[in-house]
Amino acid sequence: MKRIAASLVLAAASVMVVIPQHSLANDAKPEDVVKFRQSVYNIVGWHFGPLGDMAKGDRPYDQQLAIKNTEIVAAMSRAAADAFQPGSDVGQTSAKPEIWSKPAEFRTALERFQKEAAKLEEVARNGDFDALRAQIGETGKTWKGCHVDFRKRRR
Amino acid sequence: MKRIAASLVLAAASVMVVIPQHSLANDAKPEDVVKFRQSVYNIVGWHFGPLGDMAKGDRPYDQQLAIKNTEIVAAMSRAAADAFQPGSDVGQTSAKPEIWSKPAEFRTALERFQKEAAKLEEVARNGDFDALRAQIGETGKTWKGCHVDFRKRRR
Repeated sequence: MKRIAASLVLAAASVMVVIPQHSLANDAKPEDVVKFRQSVYNIVGWHFGPLGDMAKGDRPYDQQLAIKNTEIVAAMSRAAADAFQPGSDVGQTSAKPEIWSKPAEFRTALERFQKEAAKLEEVARNGDFDALRAQIGETGKTWKGCHVDFRKRRR
Repeated sequence: MKRIAASLVLAAASVMVVIPQHSLANDAKPEDVVKFRQSVYNIVGWHFGPLGDMAKGDRPYDQQLAIKNTEIVAAMSRAAADAFQPGSDVGQTSAKPEIWSKPAEFRTALERFQKEAAKLEEVARNGDFDALRAQIGETGKTWKGCHVDFRKRRR
């Protein structure tokens, strides 16, 4: 009886801490997922900024920088698959509950960003600035689109 | 005279906020560089962890995951070039002053990590697990080596 009770306690504890795993996920605590998610945003923003500036003509076109930054944005779009694990809507987060209540819609939005970011990396390598500028725009749209639907307004 | 005074104020202000630029750097505030640096650490740790577990046999070998994670670690090793801008030893940071007082040594240590991380990505794509395990070890050494010399002990 004691053993059963202990098992129940363990089972309850694991229900509380378990995060559904997909094959690529780290087995992390919800607050660590939040921190990871914010790191991903930070790294994307850091590297997307100079690309946006190049597209707007506020910064000279630099193919090496474009390749580096688009590679990093694309890598982060893949990293983002780990960043929205169920249970990670904790603490100071701007993530809307819709990420988890409308998982198919969120997945579609994330995959759209991943697809455009992968294309962005390819276009940067090709070295055609007009194509790059257009693709920076397309990628930016999918990034912002996700924010409109799935991020709370900034306070 | 008023104009000269205004110019001097502006010049003084720009001396205070300017961060020496190399061609890849973002023009960011010191506290944003710190945040960026910590995001880079976080992303490296997140993706290096499962690789370390595979190398130790604590997690089954998964080539797709290895490719994804090594690509991200390698991308972050390149991102790290932006993460130690002079003036960014502010706020809550574990970065040691030696990063800036011994720039040549730090650069060598960072480049060592970048080189091993680039090789790691290549080895993961080749699909030979023994080679991957060895290279995870080599990359881990350069990452830890940097911490021994350039990171304050955790409190």
